Amino acid sequence: MKTFRLLVSLEEALQLIYNRIRQVEAVEEVDLDEAVRRVSAESVKASFNVPLFDRSAMDGYCVRAEDVYSANQFNPVRLKVIGSVGVDEEPKITIRSGECVQVATGSIIPEGGNAVVMYEHTERVEDEILVYKPVYPGENISKKGSDIPEGKEVVKDGDYLNASKIGVLAALGICRVKVYKKPSVLIIPTGNELAKVGERKSPTQVYDINSHTLAAIVKENGGIPVIHDIVPDDEREIEKALEKGSEKDLIVITGGSSIGTRDIIYDVLNKRGEVLFHGVQVKPGKPTIGAVFNGKIVLAMPGHPTSCLSNAYLFLRPVLRKLARLPEINPRVIRARLCRRVVATLGRRFFLTVKLRNGEVDPVFKESSAITSMAEADGYVVIPENVDTIEKGDWVDVYLFE
Amino acid sequence: MKTFRLLVSLEEALQLIYNRIRQVEAVEEVDLDEAVRRVSAESVKASFNVPLFDRSAMDGYCVRAEDVYSANQFNPVRLKVIGSVGVDEEPKITIRSGECVQVATGSIIPEGGNAVVMYEHTERVEDEILVYKPVYPGENISKKGSDIPEGKEVVKDGDYLNASKIGVLAALGICRVKVYKKPSVLIIPTGNELAKVGERKSPTQVYDINSHTLAAIVKENGGIPVIHDIVPDDEREIEKALEKGSEKDLIVITGGSSIGTRDIIYDVLNKRGEVLFHGVQVKPGKPTIGAVFNGKIVLAMPGHPTSCLSNAYLFLRPVLRKLARLPEINPRVIRARLCRRVVATLGRRFFLTVKLRNGEVDPVFKESSAITSMAEADGYVVIPENVDTIEKGDWVDVYLFE
Repeated sequence: MKTFRLLVSLEEALQLIYNRIRQVEAVEEVDLDEAVRRVSAESVKASFNVPLFDRSAMDGYCVRAEDVYSANQFNPVRLKVIGSVGVDEEPKITIRSGECVQVATGSIIPEGGNAVVMYEHTERVEDEILVYKPVYPGENISKKGSDIPEGKEVVKDGDYLNASKIGVLAALGICRVKVYKKPSVLIIPTGNELAKVGERKSPTQVYDINSHTLAAIVKENGGIPVIHDIVPDDEREIEKALEKGSEKDLIVITGGSSIGTRDIIYDVLNKRGEVLFHGVQVKPGKPTIGAVFNGKIVLAMPGHPTSCLSNAYLFLRPVLRKLARLPEINPRVIRARLCRRVVATLGRRFFLTVKLRNGEVDPVFKESSAITSMAEADGYVVIPENVDTIEKGDWVDVYLFE
Repeated sequence: MKTFRLLVSLEEALQLIYNRIRQVEAVEEVDLDEAVRRVSAESVKASFNVPLFDRSAMDGYCVRAEDVYSANQFNPVRLKVIGSVGVDEEPKITIRSGECVQVATGSIIPEGGNAVVMYEHTERVEDEILVYKPVYPGENISKKGSDIPEGKEVVKDGDYLNASKIGVLAALGICRVKVYKKPSVLIIPTGNELAKVGERKSPTQVYDINSHTLAAIVKENGGIPVIHDIVPDDEREIEKALEKGSEKDLIVITGGSSIGTRDIIYDVLNKRGEVLFHGVQVKPGKPTIGAVFNGKIVLAMPGHPTSCLSNAYLFLRPVLRKLARLPEINPRVIRARLCRRVVATLGRRFFLTVKLRNGEVDPVFKESSAITSMAEADGYVVIPENVDTIEKGDWVDVYLFE
């Protein structure tokens, strides 16, 4: 019979994996609209100024600011309207003292003009306007290059492309973007008792839950899940399945990571790969293994659905995001009072699933094997290793599931 | 010349839209793994108990609890091992007093047994074990139906399907799920100055940024963006484009929503549709219109890229999520000190884009027309309508972009 070695902390476990991670290197080119939530694999510099010319930032009249310094509500300045510049026109007109040109938001500023008076501060009288408010030189003008100067690096290699970065690329006329490929994750369910969802052949079988919760986490975190057929509790079969991970970026295998007669995943990883840690000071999810097999990171998750999914949030999510070069996720937190006493387990950090009911925090954790320990929860409370009891009414932070 | 009417607050504007929203009714059936982040369109009840039988929650020995009440570290109880039950076996064995059966996590509990002693608390001596710790009846047994009792409603119509809900469906053998269809959103860019990204034909043209930032927001919030060809500033053309929205669930039109010669979107919406509000007390993004056209909600966004994107977060995101029946998003918040004074605008809620630099909050807002006002920001600070200045060193909440 095997025993657990030294349990490592969550932080140590993650660090042991991070030390061995090889971030995705493969690159693909996608359409601009497909690039959102991806990671740029190139540095992008502006090949021209945005705006390309001095442009009006308002609808109104382009003037020489000096002409209207004296304008006020009671003594408007009178200017002659000598023409207009549409937003799609090149101005072929020069503004001289006493003159102005009608412009719209985005119009190119004509020669001689150096400010724009907003419509609201003017009154049109035939071919003249009355200006009721002074402007300073440059007022209501977006200067050439003021948004993006030519040559500026607007996107760096490794930048996460959110909506506004997509906007910057659009501003520069870029319609194809080089991004890092999404990591592919091989999910290997193991266990003689497992049946593929919907294909139970005998009442002793249970449906394979973990492949689907893991696939969901992989998808939500920028990876491509590939679910392997169910593998029986057999060293050779498990090894064969792990071999298939060599074409993938990450391997997650579930079941059989505890100590007991069936716990052969540790044996395979230990003999054919390199075990980084075996056992983590968390509850649920203690019997988790981190390993390297054929150069690929392997996370061996406990078979209990709640332990597996809890650890998917704690391990798989940060590991996958690092692999994918995606930014870390900080869960949303709500602070509220516990509605009853909770007894924890000294020496293990307890991720207690809870529900928010009438603004209070109600534990819903049943047992590691119960998927409803997760599904009925809004989030979890972290109870540190050195705390054995939290009293009813104590304030706790609830980390929300998304 | 048109003038703005009564400006409404952000909350009023949203409420005016919510009053008229018709949430998506159309349903499609998808594979379980495609259902993550979707909204269930059916109530799902458990058609059987999970677990289907009393099962062992541990690797160990199934016993009659009464036999080992007296066990302790110094006086173990001796039991005869009469067999074992594998996880995929139906037990054909009955445990009598003084006997036990080897079980693994998940094994069905044999007749006569009522508790499981963990391996760690036993010692095997040939065909007997020494039990070093008592168990109570039911200990380490997952009772039939304890996770999900038969008949229980595990997913409700309208439930958001996160990883753990997917897990519950998997546990029940459900491999196809009825979900609400994603709302389709027609994005209509307008403006004579606009060029399709990458297809600028004259230097006066500017690239259409808004269609792409809006498409990104739509995608990130469970919608399907459909980008219309660029529409010139022409009432008839705009009307024709809006007509195409009748096949879609929501229409977003950008540009030409301010007051001025070119602001014809308001005219079209007012003549052919119903304007719910025109002008919102926010900065940037004041000239936003909410309307109904052929029964569909229309959001008319300002053409300035930062105003447009800022309002996409403030209006489009919550409206689309409500339409799609998705849960609201509460942005992540960081509290930090402002590194310089900010002068705001009385009477408008100012969404000031900021960057976090060395733990301090640095405003990066340039002007509404500059997409970099958004792209260089980590998030925004909300300055209320009745605040005109925030001093350097003041604590502010930064709402983070994702």
